[in-house]
Amino acid sequence: MLEDKNDKPLGKLDELGEFGLIKHLTDNIVLKNPSSLKGVGDDAAVIAPSKNKQTVLTTDMLVEGIHFDLLYTPFKHLGYKAVTVNLSDVYAMNAHPKQITVSLAVSNKISIEALEELYEGILLACEIHGVDLVGGDTTSSVSGLIISITALGEAKKEDLVYRNGAKENDLICVSGDLGGAFIGLQLLEREKQIFNENPSIQPDFSGYDYVLERQLKPEPRKDVIDMFEELGVKPTSMIDISDGLSSELIHICQQSGVGCSIYENKIPIDPSTVIGAEELKLNPTVCALNGGEDYELLFTISLDNYEKIKDQKRVAIIGHITADKEKYQLVSNDEVVHPLTAQGWNALLGGN
Amino acid sequence: MLEDKNDKPLGKLDELGEFGLIKHLTDNIVLKNPSSLKGVGDDAAVIAPSKNKQTVLTTDMLVEGIHFDLLYTPFKHLGYKAVTVNLSDVYAMNAHPKQITVSLAVSNKISIEALEELYEGILLACEIHGVDLVGGDTTSSVSGLIISITALGEAKKEDLVYRNGAKENDLICVSGDLGGAFIGLQLLEREKQIFNENPSIQPDFSGYDYVLERQLKPEPRKDVIDMFEELGVKPTSMIDISDGLSSELIHICQQSGVGCSIYENKIPIDPSTVIGAEELKLNPTVCALNGGEDYELLFTISLDNYEKIKDQKRVAIIGHITADKEKYQLVSNDEVVHPLTAQGWNALLGGN
Repeated sequence: MLEDKNDKPLGKLDELGEFGLIKHLTDNIVLKNPSSLKGVGDDAAVIAPSKNKQTVLTTDMLVEGIHFDLLYTPFKHLGYKAVTVNLSDVYAMNAHPKQITVSLAVSNKISIEALEELYEGILLACEIHGVDLVGGDTTSSVSGLIISITALGEAKKEDLVYRNGAKENDLICVSGDLGGAFIGLQLLEREKQIFNENPSIQPDFSGYDYVLERQLKPEPRKDVIDMFEELGVKPTSMIDISDGLSSELIHICQQSGVGCSIYENKIPIDPSTVIGAEELKLNPTVCALNGGEDYELLFTISLDNYEKIKDQKRVAIIGHITADKEKYQLVSNDEVVHPLTAQGWNALLGGN
Repeated sequence: MLEDKNDKPLGKLDELGEFGLIKHLTDNIVLKNPSSLKGVGDDAAVIAPSKNKQTVLTTDMLVEGIHFDLLYTPFKHLGYKAVTVNLSDVYAMNAHPKQITVSLAVSNKISIEALEELYEGILLACEIHGVDLVGGDTTSSVSGLIISITALGEAKKEDLVYRNGAKENDLICVSGDLGGAFIGLQLLEREKQIFNENPSIQPDFSGYDYVLERQLKPEPRKDVIDMFEELGVKPTSMIDISDGLSSELIHICQQSGVGCSIYENKIPIDPSTVIGAEELKLNPTVCALNGGEDYELLFTISLDNYEKIKDQKRVAIIGHITADKEKYQLVSNDEVVHPLTAQGWNALLGGN
């Protein structure tokens, strides 16, 4: 833990101080995983690796004003999401998360009550996913809230799935549906603008619960990892969709040295995403391709596994892997072949 | 990895983008530890835990304007220090660091060249300590630079040293010398003030190389951990000194349920720290007790190990553990007994 030498004010947190704050926020934590031997309170946490398993390690940083806007993000949701975006990366390795550390830089405008809500969300996500919070750091920030979370997970060596294993003819699959988180964000941003212009107008989000939840409280797909185990299916490659389907699919193809062909009419999009997109005058397919933050899993499976996966409601088969390295294609509903790019807006909207 | 949805400018980094930047900064990394199976480039890093070892996990966040001032902190030193403060926590468990992840939030005032220097320092620290950089996150920040580093290390279960094992009559020991980092910081802050008042005056740091280095480029004490192994000594408790001797010693005592008595004339202080303190009209002992950021190791050993440790030049025996729970004492040079508090300034200077 670093010292706050310059003694910058931590606002209402002043009375507690750094150690008091950490103690206050972490006092009731009970470690549940047998591998979590020592949590908060020493120089480091101590973890007993499980026999015959490998450790996966991932980290994500959320910055106020870049990744979230406190005007419309409840602290509890923020804490929940900060954890789940990390767990999503662990699941994307076909591994199970076990421990996290949480580091916060907190400006003096944040109250202790707000941090308590943030931790409520953090601990709720931990509980749901069977993860222990074992450490972290809390410090002042000159401006804004920054959350840096690191997650540890584990899997047997033979179960781990990387981005580089996709092979020609593999089926390209995606869990859940796409584009909703982006529509949710656009609606929140629109209402924010209206609010800024006229604070007396109350936001109207009726009918948009689903897309708002997709943005504010994404659920990482533990159930899909569990499904793989039940079905005895090991994907040949996998990635989580944080930046949009196009960008993630291209990552898989680049690292696997293959191409791809996907079909617009196979991309799963929720009806409320379509309605929201129409209201916002956006193309729902483009939102799915490039919106990002859906935290669904994009994976490839060999053809042998088609029978096992074809009736799984939570999974859509959207295309296949080709041998054409660096050739990434989207077949649109009118059967025109478009080149897929990491910025799919360009591909579909002709350059805006 | 999170998406930068709002597309806030990353200044000169714009052309590269987030993925380009990460690739640019991490392209030449070669993993050296056999346990580092997969580094940067997938959803998570993959690590093979060593047989019969436990994993330690620690994280620290450094925030511009709180922990460092870019006016007088070279980027390479900053990168080096950001890593070493984490490694220091691993050594304080009597463990060996093996992997780190580095997350950065970067404002648009930071150039690519500056980030390259930062990474030079990060990778230099990794090289010296045999650590692999295996992952991280890079994002924009609205203001300022934030560095969040997580370190993984390992040790045999029986070698791990916690804060809670100190027993009555144990000897209290400290590595190196104390107070230098604080004097270094005060000198830098003084010159900054002079510079702000009159930018034409060049800073004069002659004779202060040592204390400046203590502040800007602290060295975590791997050598002390190695010494324990060579001598066959296992401390009963250990902590690294990031917040000052008083505060850390009280942590050990509180967690061990014991008291302590230390002697002012035994506290190791470098002559240049004494000279610097005199120039700044500060009491060197107070600087050692409360200055912080020395990243030395404070540990206790049982009396049986006295013979093994007494001639070790890198270690000073400064007192002993007592049975008097919550009684923390400093015997000053004039043989007066002072209560030791986490804010030792009060104890010694009568309340300022």
